[in-house]
Amino acid sequence: MAVQQPPWSMPSRQADEPVLKVYNSLTRTKTEFVAGSGRHVKWYNCGPTVYDASHMGHARNYVTQDVLRRIVTDYFGYDVHFVMNITDIDDKIILRARQTHLVDKFRADTAHLSRELLDTVRVAWIQYIESNVDKGLPEEDKPAQGKEWEAWPRLAIQFKDKTWKQECLKRNEKFEMHFSAANRAHVALEAAEELLRSGRTSQEHAHALINDAKDILAISLDKQHGRTVTDHSIFRSLSAYWEADFFKDMRRLRVRDPDTLTRVTEYVPEIVSFVEGIVKNGYGYAVDGSVYFDTRAFDKADGHDYAKLEPWSKGNRELLEEGEGALSIASGRRSSADFALWKASKPGEPSWPSPWGPGRPGWHIECSVMASAIFGDNMDIHSGGIDLAFPHHDNEMAQSEAYHNCSPWVNYFIHTGHLHIEGLKMSKSLKNFITIDEILQKYTARQLRLAFLTQLWNAKVDFSESLMTGEVRTLETALNNFFTTIKALVGQSEADGPQLDGKNRFGSAERELTNGLHQSQAAFRAALCDSFNTPEALNVIRELVSRTNVYINSRGKDLDVAVVVRVARWVGQMLRMFGLGEGETSEIGWGQERDPGEGSVNREETLMPYLRTLSSFRDGVRKLAIAKGDGALKEILALSDKLRNVDLVPLGVALDDQEDGKALVKFVPPAELIKARDEKRAQAEAKAAQKAAAVEAERQKRLKKLEKGSVAPQDMFKPPNVSEGAYGSWDENGLPLTDGEGKELSKNQTKKVQKDWTAQKKLHEDFLAWQQAGQA
Amino acid sequence: MAVQQPPWSMPSRQADEPVLKVYNSLTRTKTEFVAGSGRHVKWYNCGPTVYDASHMGHARNYVTQDVLRRIVTDYFGYDVHFVMNITDIDDKIILRARQTHLVDKFRADTAHLSRELLDTVRVAWIQYIESNVDKGLPEEDKPAQGKEWEAWPRLAIQFKDKTWKQECLKRNEKFEMHFSAANRAHVALEAAEELLRSGRTSQEHAHALINDAKDILAISLDKQHGRTVTDHSIFRSLSAYWEADFFKDMRRLRVRDPDTLTRVTEYVPEIVSFVEGIVKNGYGYAVDGSVYFDTRAFDKADGHDYAKLEPWSKGNRELLEEGEGALSIASGRRSSADFALWKASKPGEPSWPSPWGPGRPGWHIECSVMASAIFGDNMDIHSGGIDLAFPHHDNEMAQSEAYHNCSPWVNYFIHTGHLHIEGLKMSKSLKNFITIDEILQKYTARQLRLAFLTQLWNAKVDFSESLMTGEVRTLETALNNFFTTIKALVGQSEADGPQLDGKNRFGSAERELTNGLHQSQAAFRAALCDSFNTPEALNVIRELVSRTNVYINSRGKDLDVAVVVRVARWVGQMLRMFGLGEGETSEIGWGQERDPGEGSVNREETLMPYLRTLSSFRDGVRKLAIAKGDGALKEILALSDKLRNVDLVPLGVALDDQEDGKALVKFVPPAELIKARDEKRAQAEAKAAQKAAAVEAERQKRLKKLEKGSVAPQDMFKPPNVSEGAYGSWDENGLPLTDGEGKELSKNQTKKVQKDWTAQKKLHEDFLAWQQAGQA
Repeated sequence: MAVQQPPWSMPSRQADEPVLKVYNSLTRTKTEFVAGSGRHVKWYNCGPTVYDASHMGHARNYVTQDVLRRIVTDYFGYDVHFVMNITDIDDKIILRARQTHLVDKFRADTAHLSRELLDTVRVAWIQYIESNVDKGLPEEDKPAQGKEWEAWPRLAIQFKDKTWKQECLKRNEKFEMHFSAANRAHVALEAAEELLRSGRTSQEHAHALINDAKDILAISLDKQHGRTVTDHSIFRSLSAYWEADFFKDMRRLRVRDPDTLTRVTEYVPEIVSFVEGIVKNGYGYAVDGSVYFDTRAFDKADGHDYAKLEPWSKGNRELLEEGEGALSIASGRRSSADFALWKASKPGEPSWPSPWGPGRPGWHIECSVMASAIFGDNMDIHSGGIDLAFPHHDNEMAQSEAYHNCSPWVNYFIHTGHLHIEGLKMSKSLKNFITIDEILQKYTARQLRLAFLTQLWNAKVDFSESLMTGEVRTLETALNNFFTTIKALVGQSEADGPQLDGKNRFGSAERELTNGLHQSQAAFRAALCDSFNTPEALNVIRELVSRTNVYINSRGKDLDVAVVVRVARWVGQMLRMFGLGEGETSEIGWGQERDPGEGSVNREETLMPYLRTLSSFRDGVRKLAIAKGDGALKEILALSDKLRNVDLVPLGVALDDQEDGKALVKFVPPAELIKARDEKRAQAEAKAAQKAAAVEAERQKRLKKLEKGSVAPQDMFKPPNVSEGAYGSWDENGLPLTDGEGKELSKNQTKKVQKDWTAQKKLHEDFLAWQQAGQA
Repeated sequence: MAVQQPPWSMPSRQADEPVLKVYNSLTRTKTEFVAGSGRHVKWYNCGPTVYDASHMGHARNYVTQDVLRRIVTDYFGYDVHFVMNITDIDDKIILRARQTHLVDKFRADTAHLSRELLDTVRVAWIQYIESNVDKGLPEEDKPAQGKEWEAWPRLAIQFKDKTWKQECLKRNEKFEMHFSAANRAHVALEAAEELLRSGRTSQEHAHALINDAKDILAISLDKQHGRTVTDHSIFRSLSAYWEADFFKDMRRLRVRDPDTLTRVTEYVPEIVSFVEGIVKNGYGYAVDGSVYFDTRAFDKADGHDYAKLEPWSKGNRELLEEGEGALSIASGRRSSADFALWKASKPGEPSWPSPWGPGRPGWHIECSVMASAIFGDNMDIHSGGIDLAFPHHDNEMAQSEAYHNCSPWVNYFIHTGHLHIEGLKMSKSLKNFITIDEILQKYTARQLRLAFLTQLWNAKVDFSESLMTGEVRTLETALNNFFTTIKALVGQSEADGPQLDGKNRFGSAERELTNGLHQSQAAFRAALCDSFNTPEALNVIRELVSRTNVYINSRGKDLDVAVVVRVARWVGQMLRMFGLGEGETSEIGWGQERDPGEGSVNREETLMPYLRTLSSFRDGVRKLAIAKGDGALKEILALSDKLRNVDLVPLGVALDDQEDGKALVKFVPPAELIKARDEKRAQAEAKAAQKAAAVEAERQKRLKKLEKGSVAPQDMFKPPNVSEGAYGSWDENGLPLTDGEGKELSKNQTKKVQKDWTAQKKLHEDFLAWQQAGQA
């Protein structure tokens, strides 16, 4: 065509458009984030060592990482592959599993309270005092050897003195825990002595002693028998239990599952080859069945640096030793900075075959191997708590770069900050240790997440009552009120009819609020680009909400609902993006705050428990029907009752049986159903008791009647059944003819005795029949 | 600190990372998309003129634009401000509203069937023939003036001749519609004559006539009384009704509401000042109360071009006139390419005050003004159907650039392609006109959207039965099966316990599938960057699903559920991003396909049908168990089968019986379950038929055997059972002693006849027993 379109020129790009920058522990500055392959991001996050309940420290760490992951994925639109490990081989797991196992076994093997048992516990107790309690005591209070038992009551009194206790805690930060354990065992032992003296030696008493003394027994039993524990499943089942518990807690906190989960126990062969590779490359050496990383060789090599994250921590003995674990030997290392890649296992420690003999992986090597198994020789992001930076992450990087001969293994290292509780480090001995389960009884998952969002991800968070009841509650309330207002406005506008003329026209107030929204959107983006500055992003939202409230109040009836709805939708979307709720894009509000532990919103998830109930009931019916066993029909009836009384109760469904055989289906809160069931049961029991009483009364009555019938009618009018001389003469049936004075009985009298005789005859026959039936 | 971290270098950016390009009607090429202010996108979409039900053309246009909007917002993460207008001032609306109003009024004013009414209708009918039907008729068939009524029966016969009708349609494309309307009125008039003759003149009869003749009455009444219609609400209530209907349809199609909705009736004052501004700038002139745009002045001005989108269409009279509307006068224009900015209103047309007298906005000016009211003098994207490109969008741009003295007003113009039905343009006269309500009775909103997604947004779509039952159904089924399988795998894995060791280790198959996912993610992004190429994006998903199915089939029991779950989650997310469902990020599957027109379904409503099934099954089991009837167990089995095969099928629940007696619970679309059940039933019937045939064959065989046994053994060697003279003599049991020639039987022969005799004795006994049992 001859006629051409006029030329078009590309719009000019905004000059100051922000780009995502991330605080990178490898530079200690905010560096621009560039993914290695387009929009694909390889992200490895250090997971937990699973041997105990998850606590607030875990919550801070994993919720914060979940927020970062959601921002990168859902806000910046990267295709993230998020990998997390589970450390299920570790000295802490080994000790905990072995001790728990040995105490359980000891308890199971103990049938009675005995002198032998008491002696065993007492020996363990004295050892415990010597090795754990003594080091906290002032010199002058340390009991003489062999006098620990006698000295205890005096110490127990001292213990109530706060100043004294503080002094002890300075010498041994676990003093309080150790002292309490020892004291509990002391009390239990004294009680047991008394029981033994009075001959009360039941298993119950024995087990009570073991339970109260289990902390001290665990150590002594482990010392004696630890080496005999060899079954891998003892270790694995402990970690499996706590892993499941960890994920349960994470889901309650709305932390997304990792895309890929790696467990150390499943990667041991890969670990062995990886260690072989490091040795082959000249950065590892074997000593007595263990293999160590040669930090000096690595640090000297071209293109390699040891401890890139914290070069100043090289050789920090305390940090290094904590990393090596309580069961490590670590003799024969070329440098004290060297660390174990592979540990020779002693008896009582799980082991896997290796070229260096039976052993197990060192801690740091696990992450190197598993991350390499998924990502190869480079990843975009590695995350973890700040306390892992040295030695764990530095060692991990050194190992991987030693194996792959690559550099760098990690492009961006991001570390979440510490958590303090009311200004102090959280610890069991400070009694400010809070498990996730405990905190979720006090605050919702949303409130906790909001608390973390109000702080920088890489800053120290001081979790305090004042944070929760101050900033967090204020913000949550402001947002709640905002959403409630807007939903009410929408409701009102819908009630007025959707066609309200003149309500869709942009005036200056509408234009101003809309511009405000656009400025907020830009500011929000800028905040997240600035190394995920969530406190600032929340400020942006807070200010936009205020601005919108001002608009609503100032416009009154002339308000344009669509304009505020648009603001509310965006605010809701951003809150949901942070993981504060789940819901549809256009939803106004937080969205659902669902506790996956307690239920769900998704249709299939909602239905599934009901369907499982239905299906398993059907399974039961089929099984019985196929078996055609005797009494099967009765069992079917029982199954049907179980469905109603047991299975459906926690699901909040009541089936009310009706006369026509068609039960009424009702939704009733589970608590009410349980209450009703218990009441019904109590009533049934009361009724049964009443019935039993009535049966007994009837039996007594019958017995009395039978007893009365034991007299033959011929004898009933003769002594001793009547008083001597009541009658004078009798006929052949024993019916009296004359009274005691020889006078003939009157007609009426004769009639009466005949009647009584006939009645007694009947009773006596019953009695004889009963006797004959052998029921006497 | 003296010790420094080693230097860090920024990762290198992937060289060929795709950027978003969009097919821009202003260049007719794909140009890189650059938003004018960072991530904020100003987007104006041409909305509907509301005077009738929405049809497939609307569906194609608005669903496609919704898809593009979702991609830009939810996939590319732009902060989009999506504005759409509602055209509620328009010549079509005026005519439709006025005519409807006048017919309604005429009907209300008519109390009886009368001569006067019949005459009115007949006059209207003759006018209708003259002005509408005649122009389609061949010269020789045109009735002489005044002879229309008498000529009609002959024409009605002609009308049944297809060739004749085709000829008429060539002369007047609305011939069929006009003829049918005239014929309906003719029939009704004849019937009314008969009623009037017989004195049946009730209002009911009168209204029946008016209803059947309403199309012709509308035109005649409008001609007579149209000018008297002045009340604005008459026009507004028609458009309000159809606007609400439009949004109801859109929500059923899962098209998101615009962020901001603008209605022409609410922007008239702004339109007036805008027109004044154009006139002031020298690009408009007033004639007889109307104002026109001076296309030549504009085209000549520096920095302005008229008709940037379709410069070759300048002066295309047909297109221009369609744009001006049926009620326009348009005399006195300086150029035939000039178009109305403001139309003087004649009596019977709604009007607003203006410097040029009472009038109303021209069509094109509406969008210029409303978009400017929200966005000012520039926007990033303007979208609409391709048929709006010229003159509507070209005029819109010219007006705005003339007013703002800016260029360009629109950076990216995107036009959705045409829709054809089975290869033809959709039109009422071709009888392939389909409303959205009609199509949603045949297909789901998801299927329709899938159909549009399989086509390029700016290509012509041929909507056909074969597209829906071919590509769309195949794709939907493949995805359904995929999600069902993965959900079943997840269910099984959860039932097996979440702690399965050895199931989280990446082998080569897992690595391969994971790499496949990452490649698909990159390819999917590349497809969407390539001007929103959704057919290619769906191909990427289709291939990934196949790849995953291959993995699942090849890995069997060793499958790593987490790896396939990750694929399924991503696939589900992308489908939901396209608007094919709603749901949570981590959900496996399409998500909810909810019809917002029907209201959201709450938990109890969701559960109730399932619970009823469960409860009535239980009722059945209890009834049987209580009755303890014969064969009850068999009936229980039948009940259990009924639950699976009948009751749960329409609820979309499959119970797959397993060997361990615990059925697998699956969610499967009811249609699939019904299909599978029918197939199973057909198989069972075939098997039963086979079995019946075998039983019959067996019966025949038995009958034959019995028949053979009807001969007593004593008679078996005597005629007529053997040929005359086969034997000479017999013993008392009928055993032959000599042959026909009197010769004694040989030892072997004797042995053989004895054996046969014994066999026959057995058969005969069976026969007698059968006879005695009365089964003869």
